Amino acid sequence: MQAMKKVLVIGGDGFCGWPTALHLSELGHEVTIADNLSRRAIDAELGAESLTPIETMETRIAAWKEVSGKTIGFAQIDVAKDVIALRSLLEEMRPDTVIHFGEQRAAPYSMKGLKQKLYTVDNNISATHNLLAVISETGIDPHVVHLGTMGVYGYDGDGLTIPEGYLTVFVPGEDNQMFKRDILYPTNPGSVYHMTKSMDQLLLQFYAKNDMIRVTDLHQGIVWGTQTEETRRDVRLINRFDYDGDYGTVLNRFLMQAAVGHPLTVHGTGGQTRAFIHIQDTVRCVALAVANPPEQNGKVKILNQMTETHRVRDLANLIGRIADAEVALVDNPRKEAAENDLRVSNATFLDLGLKPITLAEGLLEETVEIATKYAHRYKPETVACVSTWTDQQKPGFVRDELHSFSQNTADRTATAETRG
Amino acid sequence: MQAMKKVLVIGGDGFCGWPTALHLSELGHEVTIADNLSRRAIDAELGAESLTPIETMETRIAAWKEVSGKTIGFAQIDVAKDVIALRSLLEEMRPDTVIHFGEQRAAPYSMKGLKQKLYTVDNNISATHNLLAVISETGIDPHVVHLGTMGVYGYDGDGLTIPEGYLTVFVPGEDNQMFKRDILYPTNPGSVYHMTKSMDQLLLQFYAKNDMIRVTDLHQGIVWGTQTEETRRDVRLINRFDYDGDYGTVLNRFLMQAAVGHPLTVHGTGGQTRAFIHIQDTVRCVALAVANPPEQNGKVKILNQMTETHRVRDLANLIGRIADAEVALVDNPRKEAAENDLRVSNATFLDLGLKPITLAEGLLEETVEIATKYAHRYKPETVACVSTWTDQQKPGFVRDELHSFSQNTADRTATAETRG
Repeated sequence: MQAMKKVLVIGGDGFCGWPTALHLSELGHEVTIADNLSRRAIDAELGAESLTPIETMETRIAAWKEVSGKTIGFAQIDVAKDVIALRSLLEEMRPDTVIHFGEQRAAPYSMKGLKQKLYTVDNNISATHNLLAVISETGIDPHVVHLGTMGVYGYDGDGLTIPEGYLTVFVPGEDNQMFKRDILYPTNPGSVYHMTKSMDQLLLQFYAKNDMIRVTDLHQGIVWGTQTEETRRDVRLINRFDYDGDYGTVLNRFLMQAAVGHPLTVHGTGGQTRAFIHIQDTVRCVALAVANPPEQNGKVKILNQMTETHRVRDLANLIGRIADAEVALVDNPRKEAAENDLRVSNATFLDLGLKPITLAEGLLEETVEIATKYAHRYKPETVACVSTWTDQQKPGFVRDELHSFSQNTADRTATAETRG
Repeated sequence: MQAMKKVLVIGGDGFCGWPTALHLSELGHEVTIADNLSRRAIDAELGAESLTPIETMETRIAAWKEVSGKTIGFAQIDVAKDVIALRSLLEEMRPDTVIHFGEQRAAPYSMKGLKQKLYTVDNNISATHNLLAVISETGIDPHVVHLGTMGVYGYDGDGLTIPEGYLTVFVPGEDNQMFKRDILYPTNPGSVYHMTKSMDQLLLQFYAKNDMIRVTDLHQGIVWGTQTEETRRDVRLINRFDYDGDYGTVLNRFLMQAAVGHPLTVHGTGGQTRAFIHIQDTVRCVALAVANPPEQNGKVKILNQMTETHRVRDLANLIGRIADAEVALVDNPRKEAAENDLRVSNATFLDLGLKPITLAEGLLEETVEIATKYAHRYKPETVACVSTWTDQQKPGFVRDELHSFSQNTADRTATAETRG
């Protein structure tokens, strides 16, 4: 039985934050959510919404109280903008742990245009830095658990296994002497969003070193699935299911396409290999991270929060078989390697007892069922990925290519995102 | 004879920016300055000011016109806050080169408290990102010259020569195979200010790779001296001379202390080795960078803009001899190694023809003369370095220690800063 902790979940209204808050509450922790509800505001901006109907935060929390008897606190705070409110909350609550999900997390959204690039950098960097600077200022000593991404490593496909955050290298000096160094894995972010997570790493490293803040940075793979043990307990607790061109991650978008009878659209050759994790394992991993804070040794603890790797085309073929759907290749709006290998170490979570959920275990079918159940809420016009990485990849080009494929342009522009 | 270019100097009102603008104008470039005059505002905030009397931007530009016949444009713009004004200026001017000095550059200021930490991160990251994102958006293709710092490398004193930005390493793979990789030098920033420059590197790398923006990043050492060939031409063109606890760099502060007959106060043992450059060489290096843009190859060109390295205590002893001043050791408010070695490659600037000005060549005497000439403007109460790096290093402690040294606390709390 682990000790109960006071846990602040920043960004606890989002796709990962909400089920994490429920899971930690279920485990007996005293949970408070801080969120500016920006994810709902971006839905409004994009004319998109979760396929599953999401209740207000007040209803969600009341429903959780009904089914579990447990109380989750909620403070509507923008940690990226309101340092005073953040400081007051920390001083009042004095959390043992702060989990920081409070960042804009969609790569295509971050590449949409000037406004979204500026917002993603301002929001993500300010949120992370405000938290660290306020902790340093107040002297409250919570363990900070930050959600990073596998994407900071880049996908160079160079035959090396990606370690947990740090890399041992040898540096040639004078006289051919080799100096051994343990360095932060050199980042190669593929979007403005991923770049902010690389920059976050430098913020976390500095405050860990200078102020001895204890930090765990979780480099998460692409999350799939919708429900967890807790969100299944009442329809009012249901988690988000995003399938739009900006926020829908690759696997959920394939599942949505399958549910509405569309071809599964794969970017490029689909040879991109990515790391994946089920949302149920996300919440378990975060709980393990909360229970196992690092020593106060000036070094960020980095864990790879993923359970398996797959090529995108293999996923499309797998889901195509389950759901009897076609697979179609479309132009890739991203600037990325067409094909890459990926080997990743997730030794720490396995050592801590994680039993990974894998793609073959029936949860794909559950997600197809959810997609089918809520198919009447499907908005085909939101599915197109219109963010391109450079001027050379005009959205019009992707759309025209797809138009020749079918008369029903809006429906057919569903494209699969690869993102972690 | 090099080609005339249209050059935008962001931060052209500052200590490095102003003499750079004059030097480029003298060389025949068409120069426009964009500045929010924040350096003057911070003087007001700190109750400090340049020892040398600085004219308004209007008077400076008019004086330059008088003595040189050349016109420098000026736009009062906050590039960190006003993206619309920045975009309009770029579209109107269509510069060949943008030199980006527009960042808060004092490490002690960046560590002063919550407000200054937040300001430094917000200002520096937004200024750099706004510039890159607007360039990406408009399709104008200027060469971006960014002022970085030697401080991003950290001062680990590990016997390796610091290369120009990139490091060749060998990574052990399976079967003891060694993979050779060319990586960005792993950063180890020593303050919030230095951290922002490390984060800038990731911004520059991403936009160079994704948008093919041509970027030169100048990792500058600690700048000393005041005057350049151009600023000497009229008293209204005189450059800043900062000696206060936040903005005064180590050498100028020693020179100031010597001029007013105070002991030269050295932090810790003075065993910190740092890289230095004279302001005259700064402007020459920037001009060389402007004349030699990198290829559009997706990679940032990084140059070490420094000419020599010295231990702080050796500098104190050197100036002590010249000016017949005592040297005194005081507690170090910074969290840094007491002693370190430092070897740095500046091969590119030497190859481009830079003839470095070194400490022995009479410019020390010139700076002592300036300090003496304006000694009546000296404000002893601004000299104390009251920013400490952690709670364990209370300013009171430094002050008390110094108080026992002399009755004249305010004068005696002059402490030497090491910063690049």
